[in-house]
Amino acid sequence: MSDFKKIGIIGLGVIGGSLALEIKKRKIAEKVIGFSRKIKTMEKALKEGIIDEFYDCPEKLIENTDFLILSTPISALYNYIKIIKVTNPKIFFTDVASVKKVICENVEKIIGENSNFVGSHPIAGSEKSGIENIKDGLFENKIVIITPTKNTNKNVKKKVKLLWEKLGSKVYIMDPEQHDKILGFTSHLPHLLIYTLLSVGEKNKEILKKFFGSGFFDTTRIGKSNPEMWTDIFLENKINILDWTKKFEDEINKLKIILKRNEREKLYKFLKRAKIFRESLE
Amino acid sequence: MSDFKKIGIIGLGVIGGSLALEIKKRKIAEKVIGFSRKIKTMEKALKEGIIDEFYDCPEKLIENTDFLILSTPISALYNYIKIIKVTNPKIFFTDVASVKKVICENVEKIIGENSNFVGSHPIAGSEKSGIENIKDGLFENKIVIITPTKNTNKNVKKKVKLLWEKLGSKVYIMDPEQHDKILGFTSHLPHLLIYTLLSVGEKNKEILKKFFGSGFFDTTRIGKSNPEMWTDIFLENKINILDWTKKFEDEINKLKIILKRNEREKLYKFLKRAKIFRESLE
Repeated sequence: MSDFKKIGIIGLGVIGGSLALEIKKRKIAEKVIGFSRKIKTMEKALKEGIIDEFYDCPEKLIENTDFLILSTPISALYNYIKIIKVTNPKIFFTDVASVKKVICENVEKIIGENSNFVGSHPIAGSEKSGIENIKDGLFENKIVIITPTKNTNKNVKKKVKLLWEKLGSKVYIMDPEQHDKILGFTSHLPHLLIYTLLSVGEKNKEILKKFFGSGFFDTTRIGKSNPEMWTDIFLENKINILDWTKKFEDEINKLKIILKRNEREKLYKFLKRAKIFRESLE
Repeated sequence: MSDFKKIGIIGLGVIGGSLALEIKKRKIAEKVIGFSRKIKTMEKALKEGIIDEFYDCPEKLIENTDFLILSTPISALYNYIKIIKVTNPKIFFTDVASVKKVICENVEKIIGENSNFVGSHPIAGSEKSGIENIKDGLFENKIVIITPTKNTNKNVKKKVKLLWEKLGSKVYIMDPEQHDKILGFTSHLPHLLIYTLLSVGEKNKEILKKFFGSGFFDTTRIGKSNPEMWTDIFLENKINILDWTKKFEDEINKLKIILKRNEREKLYKFLKRAKIFRESLE
């Protein structure tokens, strides 16, 4: 017997599509039902066995499933939460977005404090988007952060935790504020820096031509990420991102002074400490 | 018949070792002779067929070869250039360092304007160092920049160009100033940013714990590079690096204003333009 009956997934991009595929493969639910704004995406997902069924409107899907995963861009999320309130406000549901505080607040604002929601964030993204980029075993051994609030129903939390564990993920639980602070550094700040670096490159492309090596390509791979998705993330986690940017600027100012003063030993120690920290993460 | 007789390589790290291996494999020279400060490295290189011979002091190697590649850290280079001046000032030689202006100037200062030197920079590095990390075919299809000055002997330029072409590289010729400006952006600035990012991470490691994903790991891979080597590069190309850092700061300030004002459309366009530039490089 499966742990879940009918799981609905709204949004069949890299994360939503990979979730559907993996839930089916691991027989975590009896049925996986999808919805995407694009009929072609749903047809492709059905044809390739990524989902079992689809509905042509989100209301039907929300009415006819008992567990829902919202896997859309952040700016599209709120509309679906409003539909949940009207159609099936007691449904168990989660999301997969890269920011959590504002989403958790909005769910409580729209549906109420006794909604059956808890936020999730699988740290398993990619710079690629769309159903053509879904990946087998995408969540295996990946970190997933679940962000309950003081109002979160314990049964929902348990159910959502179970889902990710069945997908092979390592689940951590923290409050949404802490999540947004941490991810503001580990994911959002690097994206901000790389988009900025690329923007400088774009403005100087005539002199730079094609003199880029593999280091540059690896470093800037995240700059190929979906700009719509990242517009949302930057705006929704603005306070933490600006705060980390300030810390980054303080640090680069120190490095600039070391350089200007030709302080070789201090410079070496700065780089060495950074390298050791990077190596400690692996 | 080989194009070169005896090629000497001083420094048997990733670049020097890979060069020796590849020159032998492609039979570009009749003999490849190595020198490293560490006797163990030379013994390993000989045993593994990376070099044909080694000398236990650099003077002997410089006296007994007709073409020399200096493949040491920048701060060690000048000492070997002084030995060249004393031992064999007419030897044809090149280097492989990531900065060029200061090196070209120092060669002319130490040996004189009629030295037989031209600088090279193979854009084929790695964050790994040492002979244990040498790589087969490292220079195949990689860009190599050769930086003649107004005093460069044409025969040396031709010979050095031939060497890299025989190694499968795409050779570009530009003056040392232009090289240092371009690489200041495409390689040195990204390293500066990533070392700084890691330094901020190091100072906040207690709250960040292990919540890092593959995006962070790829972006910061270059932060594992050799800090001694990068201390030299940052100091030797300081002016260009500080100039690019200023441009980066101007750009991040624009992005911060966009964020603070919640200018969604402008933000989206900023990110989209950066993404398109990144994709255009591939």
